Amino acid sequence: MDESIILTIAILGGTGKEGPGLAQRWANAGYRIIIGSREAEKAQRVAQEINERLGIESIQGMQNAEAASNANICVLTVVQSAHQEALESVKDALKGKILVDTTARVDFRDPKPPKPPSAARMAQDLLGPEVQVVAAFQTVPAHALQDDINEPLNMDVLVFADDDAAAREVILLAEAAGMGAYHAGGLDSAVVVEGLSAVLIELNRRYDSKMGAIRIAGLEK
Amino acid sequence: MDESIILTIAILGGTGKEGPGLAQRWANAGYRIIIGSREAEKAQRVAQEINERLGIESIQGMQNAEAASNANICVLTVVQSAHQEALESVKDALKGKILVDTTARVDFRDPKPPKPPSAARMAQDLLGPEVQVVAAFQTVPAHALQDDINEPLNMDVLVFADDDAAAREVILLAEAAGMGAYHAGGLDSAVVVEGLSAVLIELNRRYDSKMGAIRIAGLEK
Repeated sequence: MDESIILTIAILGGTGKEGPGLAQRWANAGYRIIIGSREAEKAQRVAQEINERLGIESIQGMQNAEAASNANICVLTVVQSAHQEALESVKDALKGKILVDTTARVDFRDPKPPKPPSAARMAQDLLGPEVQVVAAFQTVPAHALQDDINEPLNMDVLVFADDDAAAREVILLAEAAGMGAYHAGGLDSAVVVEGLSAVLIELNRRYDSKMGAIRIAGLEK
Repeated sequence: MDESIILTIAILGGTGKEGPGLAQRWANAGYRIIIGSREAEKAQRVAQEINERLGIESIQGMQNAEAASNANICVLTVVQSAHQEALESVKDALKGKILVDTTARVDFRDPKPPKPPSAARMAQDLLGPEVQVVAAFQTVPAHALQDDINEPLNMDVLVFADDDAAAREVILLAEAAGMGAYHAGGLDSAVVVEGLSAVLIELNRRYDSKMGAIRIAGLEK
């Protein structure tokens, strides 16, 4: 990464399991990171925990809207029940930016494939044309992100975006975090990976794992 | 495979691209194969072509219902527009057997994720409880089946079945054909891999391939 153009990534709703896991990999790859939360204090506490784990001081914690305002690119990692409220709270702050929506509308206790439209399409409709929504990372198991952050991850990410340039930005983010990534279609098709995350929950249950993920075979990049 | 219990597999609608590809791998693994078609003559012609390619004489061609009657397990590989008619034509012949439904209701020219219920659930509803429907092989690229049939394939198959024993039978078939396979849930969840086959068509287009497929990572078998 060119030091003169270090991107700042805000991880909105970043105090759960997925957010800190992604944060530490991106911080390790040289990005500036802001953890966002509904409560600034909680965000700061989680940011501090990640800083201590990595032996750095650069990760900040802020309330979601402030985090979005201070970032170049935002990644939403809230639980599905908080999806709409979180989007509304950051709508103005996201103008002119990419929002990466990681939401899969799947209940861990009763995983079923959700119906269209995709969560990312709902986000795009709510945020309007001044925000570029990209769907990605739904199938990334949080447990795998706790492994050695210098090692590549055995998984691929399917990136869905209506805009090719926005998809390319998110593919770079995925690769920086040690994953493979492919632009797999427009926002509407993201409903497929929401269903796939339900299938992976079921596979984890049946094969006694927490690390089930997908890879794509047969494509040259 | 125990020679004393060689299974006969009927590949119904087996004269397209997918059917012969699966047939030659299963014949090579020691299964008896019957190619089924609406027209017995067409089935016999395709059976003969596969026999010549493999240097064997055992593969037979029959009209679909006769093929189903003479098999232990049946695999449906028709195009989506022929799905319902094919099922109706073999309904009686399938009683007491497993039908493996490979159907993805996806248009190659305009690939979109189909809506629930899954094609396999529709098949189960049409065939009734005396047939055990299993969904599998939707994401297998026909082109990959033309490779050296002695080499394993770089892909996994997600198997969806309401019955665990039926799923295990089909996992054995997939493994015999050189693929990995996982029981990934009940018939309703098969709609996810139908959508995934639409995504793979899109990935093939974007990355200029005919071989896009999936692998599952992070599970011990």
